[in-house]
Amino acid sequence: MEDEHRPTTAPEPECDKHEDRVEDPEDPGSTGNGISSLEQPLLKRSTTLTASHLALVGAKVSHIESLDYEIIENDLFKHDWRSRSNVEVLQYIFLKWAMAFLVGLLTGVIASLINLSIENISGLKMLHMVNLVREKRYWAGFFYFAGVNFALTFVAAVLCVVFAPTAAGPGIPEIKAYLNGVDTPNMFGFPQLIVKIIGSIGAVSSGLDLGKEGPLVHIGACLANLLSQGGEGRWRLKWRWLRYFNNDRDRRDLITCGASSGVCAAFRSPVGGVLFALEEVATWWRSALLWRTFFSTATVVVVLRGFIEVCREGRCGMFGEGGLILFDVSDVTVRYHVGDLLPVTLVGVLGGLLGALYNHVLHKVLRLYNLINARGRMAKLALALAVCVFTSAGLYVLPFAVPCTPCDPAFGEACPSTGKSGNFKQFNCPAGYYNDLASLLHATNVDATRNIFSTGTSGEFRLDSLFIFLAIYVVLGLFTFGIAVPSGLFLPIILMGSAYGRITALLLRRWARIDHGLYAVLGAAALMSGSMRMTVSLCVIFLELTNNLLLLPITMFVLLIAKTVGDAFNPSIYEIILDLKGLPFLEPKPEPWMKDIAVGELAAAKPRAVTLQVVEKVSTVVETLRNTCHNGFPVLDRPRPGVSELHGLVLRSHLVAVLRKRWFLPEKRRTEEWEARERFSSTDLAEKAGTIDDVELTPEEMDMYIDLHPFTNTTPYTVVETMSVAKAVVLFRTCALRHMLIIPKFQGPEIPPIMGILTRQDLRGHNILGAFPHLANKKKTH
Amino acid sequence: MEDEHRPTTAPEPECDKHEDRVEDPEDPGSTGNGISSLEQPLLKRSTTLTASHLALVGAKVSHIESLDYEIIENDLFKHDWRSRSNVEVLQYIFLKWAMAFLVGLLTGVIASLINLSIENISGLKMLHMVNLVREKRYWAGFFYFAGVNFALTFVAAVLCVVFAPTAAGPGIPEIKAYLNGVDTPNMFGFPQLIVKIIGSIGAVSSGLDLGKEGPLVHIGACLANLLSQGGEGRWRLKWRWLRYFNNDRDRRDLITCGASSGVCAAFRSPVGGVLFALEEVATWWRSALLWRTFFSTATVVVVLRGFIEVCREGRCGMFGEGGLILFDVSDVTVRYHVGDLLPVTLVGVLGGLLGALYNHVLHKVLRLYNLINARGRMAKLALALAVCVFTSAGLYVLPFAVPCTPCDPAFGEACPSTGKSGNFKQFNCPAGYYNDLASLLHATNVDATRNIFSTGTSGEFRLDSLFIFLAIYVVLGLFTFGIAVPSGLFLPIILMGSAYGRITALLLRRWARIDHGLYAVLGAAALMSGSMRMTVSLCVIFLELTNNLLLLPITMFVLLIAKTVGDAFNPSIYEIILDLKGLPFLEPKPEPWMKDIAVGELAAAKPRAVTLQVVEKVSTVVETLRNTCHNGFPVLDRPRPGVSELHGLVLRSHLVAVLRKRWFLPEKRRTEEWEARERFSSTDLAEKAGTIDDVELTPEEMDMYIDLHPFTNTTPYTVVETMSVAKAVVLFRTCALRHMLIIPKFQGPEIPPIMGILTRQDLRGHNILGAFPHLANKKKTH
Repeated sequence: MEDEHRPTTAPEPECDKHEDRVEDPEDPGSTGNGISSLEQPLLKRSTTLTASHLALVGAKVSHIESLDYEIIENDLFKHDWRSRSNVEVLQYIFLKWAMAFLVGLLTGVIASLINLSIENISGLKMLHMVNLVREKRYWAGFFYFAGVNFALTFVAAVLCVVFAPTAAGPGIPEIKAYLNGVDTPNMFGFPQLIVKIIGSIGAVSSGLDLGKEGPLVHIGACLANLLSQGGEGRWRLKWRWLRYFNNDRDRRDLITCGASSGVCAAFRSPVGGVLFALEEVATWWRSALLWRTFFSTATVVVVLRGFIEVCREGRCGMFGEGGLILFDVSDVTVRYHVGDLLPVTLVGVLGGLLGALYNHVLHKVLRLYNLINARGRMAKLALALAVCVFTSAGLYVLPFAVPCTPCDPAFGEACPSTGKSGNFKQFNCPAGYYNDLASLLHATNVDATRNIFSTGTSGEFRLDSLFIFLAIYVVLGLFTFGIAVPSGLFLPIILMGSAYGRITALLLRRWARIDHGLYAVLGAAALMSGSMRMTVSLCVIFLELTNNLLLLPITMFVLLIAKTVGDAFNPSIYEIILDLKGLPFLEPKPEPWMKDIAVGELAAAKPRAVTLQVVEKVSTVVETLRNTCHNGFPVLDRPRPGVSELHGLVLRSHLVAVLRKRWFLPEKRRTEEWEARERFSSTDLAEKAGTIDDVELTPEEMDMYIDLHPFTNTTPYTVVETMSVAKAVVLFRTCALRHMLIIPKFQGPEIPPIMGILTRQDLRGHNILGAFPHLANKKKTH
Repeated sequence: MEDEHRPTTAPEPECDKHEDRVEDPEDPGSTGNGISSLEQPLLKRSTTLTASHLALVGAKVSHIESLDYEIIENDLFKHDWRSRSNVEVLQYIFLKWAMAFLVGLLTGVIASLINLSIENISGLKMLHMVNLVREKRYWAGFFYFAGVNFALTFVAAVLCVVFAPTAAGPGIPEIKAYLNGVDTPNMFGFPQLIVKIIGSIGAVSSGLDLGKEGPLVHIGACLANLLSQGGEGRWRLKWRWLRYFNNDRDRRDLITCGASSGVCAAFRSPVGGVLFALEEVATWWRSALLWRTFFSTATVVVVLRGFIEVCREGRCGMFGEGGLILFDVSDVTVRYHVGDLLPVTLVGVLGGLLGALYNHVLHKVLRLYNLINARGRMAKLALALAVCVFTSAGLYVLPFAVPCTPCDPAFGEACPSTGKSGNFKQFNCPAGYYNDLASLLHATNVDATRNIFSTGTSGEFRLDSLFIFLAIYVVLGLFTFGIAVPSGLFLPIILMGSAYGRITALLLRRWARIDHGLYAVLGAAALMSGSMRMTVSLCVIFLELTNNLLLLPITMFVLLIAKTVGDAFNPSIYEIILDLKGLPFLEPKPEPWMKDIAVGELAAAKPRAVTLQVVEKVSTVVETLRNTCHNGFPVLDRPRPGVSELHGLVLRSHLVAVLRKRWFLPEKRRTEEWEARERFSSTDLAEKAGTIDDVELTPEEMDMYIDLHPFTNTTPYTVVETMSVAKAVVLFRTCALRHMLIIPKFQGPEIPPIMGILTRQDLRGHNILGAFPHLANKKKTH
């Protein structure tokens, strides 16, 4: 429940109503009128500061919460730290590292198994299809190809639609939001993990234009979350050691490890994985975490290497060819001169332009898809299957449209080849000839990338084949991403980028003296940068993908150009998706107009904060919890007449824990520290189980009192009312806060000790502009 | 001036007395009794919370200040932002990028020139020496060799001692402190830059066991600082655009760019440079800065490549051989199996142990050297020259101690060679034989590393030669670092590490099946990690140095082991140096016992904060400034009886600016906003020129009033008195603060609006333990 502050007199908290109303994904009316058009925002946003806290996750409107990354300093937790023995501290440290190791290990194993399945399933599929074509049974070939793809997509989509709608898509935006402090429900659980694994295998082997990279990142994060909780729901382990991880902070660190392990497993790129997590995913970072993440990715690499070693020489079917480097282009010595600057710059500029255009169009397509997906499960399924049929038809038919090319012995590779992989597919061609488009389309996405990146093959691909390839993959890349299967964005973008890179090289072949395969690499990097706007991590990922260090300076150059050009048009694709999903992500930089408004003004625009007294009546606490959906309540005291005290902030979950334990006092008095400790351990308090609706109290109990001293965090973060919102946003984000108290600048009688309370939603630019429209004008002049 | 708070009644501020007393580095008594022993701390630390703010920089005690990274929100600055036009915003953005480009460009050019000089000077020296040896004129050879080295060291040391004592050493700890918020004087100026360039050329070509890597980082930082200020002192440019950079925040960002450019230029490692700045040097980091830093290092690489291109085929004397990759070992295909685990683990564990031991012994040596250096300029010079003579003797004589080895045609390289470089130096051997120790000792440090890293040469080096090499370089590595010349730590550690790596490979040759050259690489990486405790950045630097991606997983493994082992013994070498220099660096993690003390207790242990009224008498302001050395003063108001207001915090430099401008009011009144703006621009206020001693006022002026409204930062960061020090330290560091106000938790009449003020010194563990010794006992139990 998010933290808006409404008066206690409200009879029913709005937050719960919302949640009930939109629970059923089958109900077409659940998404309201707000999304009936392509132009309007997907979620209706309120125009006051108490903004919506609902988000669309996996095309389903969900209730979102903030995470408590702040250190809670209350009596019980403080006692827990103080009483921790050295052994317990060592247990904690050991567990942190053991968890990081396990996350890496499991991610590596699962990634290898996924790879193994995909390579074998799609390999067998391709082989049989090619055989049918060689026997000139073209229709049989088509129906076989399309049928298998249909079945695979069906499995992936049904799993995704029925069991885990949030497993659709890459999951990276939600991880990014989680690490920013926004929790989306049902995102990192066991069903998501399983659906993501099987769905990813199905979707990728069915030939859809999507990668397993994003899903692998999500799988890593799911593993991290499940490990830190000891499982989920009923099957949850109650191991004593796991209590150390029963807080949002340690879970956040582990999920960061999981995300980098995922990238590492996807690209076999340990350093790139760490940097991806650092540059793109994580909001807060410390040196210690850098090291732990690095440890996780190192574990992943060892596991991957182990699998490759075991599977060498065909022991795992069609898996295990190729080494640790996915697209090795290290055999080319790169020499470049001033003359190469022009085509390379062009690749960079085009990458920025096309990336921005891709973001723009994908945004529109996703809005359209959300409308379709909102119509229910069958609509989702139909959409996925339609895209699958279209993809199968395109991939199968198009190679017939290009003429056969004679093999050139200078290529030095088997030509033509009839196997599963191979750069020169014979397909429908006579002996001695190959079909260049079939080499690209009749292969897994990874093999297609390997073929288009191949070096020393400048004459291999015909210009028209490359144009056809680019066209079909642009269409597929736009229309595949939003369907209800686990899908990654990396590989589609790499394919598009490499195509236009090769095309540029072919068109400018008089000036482009670098190998055409390297142009494909540069194009892929440029388009990635133009769409995702990463720099250092992409650079390292491409370095680790291609193993050509000499290409590094030129890659850096291209990446910088593409990002600069892209940033001139729109935000990165992940930010677009975050916005589309309505996740309240806090941007690193405050808007310029935020300097012109003080937090005191924000507080004045909101209802008064709901506060509690240190020793409070049970009935008051229950009513406050029932009638609001705030998550934190300032606790005040009045030690002597005329003097008021800001005692601290108490969390909803802690109040619920107290009510459930029925720790009530017959008279209004302050308790001693040991009294609470007799009944509560810090572990009880850390559990976030149950809501206020589970609490049922007798009228006698309602007349008793609660002493909030032991549960109140006495050190909330504060800002003076005169602080500008810009500065407050920076403080809020850098310290990873959930609540921030506004204190008055005056000190004297009759002045309340707090002026208000700020939460994430209050500090989001969009919400502030809703309440203070005059700032929008200033915005334009800046 | 640092920010302790003493009562205003003190007749003379202590800070100035200190500074006067220790200004003369010639005075042997200046360092006091505190450092007369090897065991006692170098700087006498006070036992109250008002701790010393003096640091030893370049063996000279200096006055240090904190930096103002906080956004100052006062009327004048706020008006400046609001009135900034779009053109000015674009100017600012353009300038930021132009500066980052210039920093990269100049660092690249200077690094290339330094390289060119070193290669030519030491090349010529070696050639002539070898010729003398070949003519069997051994004594002439020795005196020539030692004489040239002596002269080169003399130039470097004299420059360093006379013109810029702070240019001695690597400079990285000071940059690290600067980016943490600690300013050391005379660190990033023009003399430092020049001395560092020339001194580095002299010191490295004289054959001393030190690298140019640390100095290059310092050179990059100096360039960044000078560019952002438009020069120094009298020659400072007063270009209008530069006013955007007249604040500590933008300068910090640019210095980060400079530091990464330096690393990039040293190792030709653009990504490694960025990561080094991120992992080791910088305290605060944002995504935008990652990108700008990356742009700087990309520029450096382009410049380096340009120089290499121009200098190809001997056009620059002996510079320009070798490409962009310093120690290319990419010709070996790395295959490793479970059996290799044992020797590789051993290399890692040894790296950690030796690294920790190196840190420990170097610490002792530096303490000894500080005693010597404190005796004056002549002592410093004598020490440097003594080390030079010892080095020359060792390098010249030792190769005579080993027998000659017959050339093996399998090596495939010129053997024996008589030129400047070459892996098989003939030296004193007959034709067909080479002296393996001469190959390592009679070469520049870079060439020596290249030789010991060379692959496919497992039989090249004899075990006894390697032991001699290791022994001499351990001794030299310990005793060279602290002398008064610009010196880097990287290369000495790489040399030691590669030697023990090769030794391990030779000793375990039954189990070590990986190439011996790669063992040298692993040894170097392990020792670096064991001493400097970096992980990701080292990994990338080694990847970019050696261009062997297949080595990456095993490098990660070794680095993790070495860091873990090293961390069990002592902190990293940079932390040791920071501590030795007395720089008040704020650690990322608070001590565990800091949870047991509240900021209110700290405030109670200090003298009351010195406050000012919003409209204050000139004489009071002048006296406050003269009698204290605080840098920030809380400003209070009393809008109506019984009510007091915390108006904000005013900085010393702003008060001095007001006094110098004589903006006084004849009567006690509050001014309008435009009145101050008529006299002050935000640019005037940002200038930190002048101290209170420059202000001379007439008695009439002293009786007038100052309205502090326009100059007061109305949004200081605040914490409630109940906050634990642990949490306050995290807030202080993550928000890069200089002052933090403690506010009372009570609200009522007669309660002061602030309880105290905290600065960096108050939050350092050592100082708190001094004032609260009972916490030290708890410390042990944790």
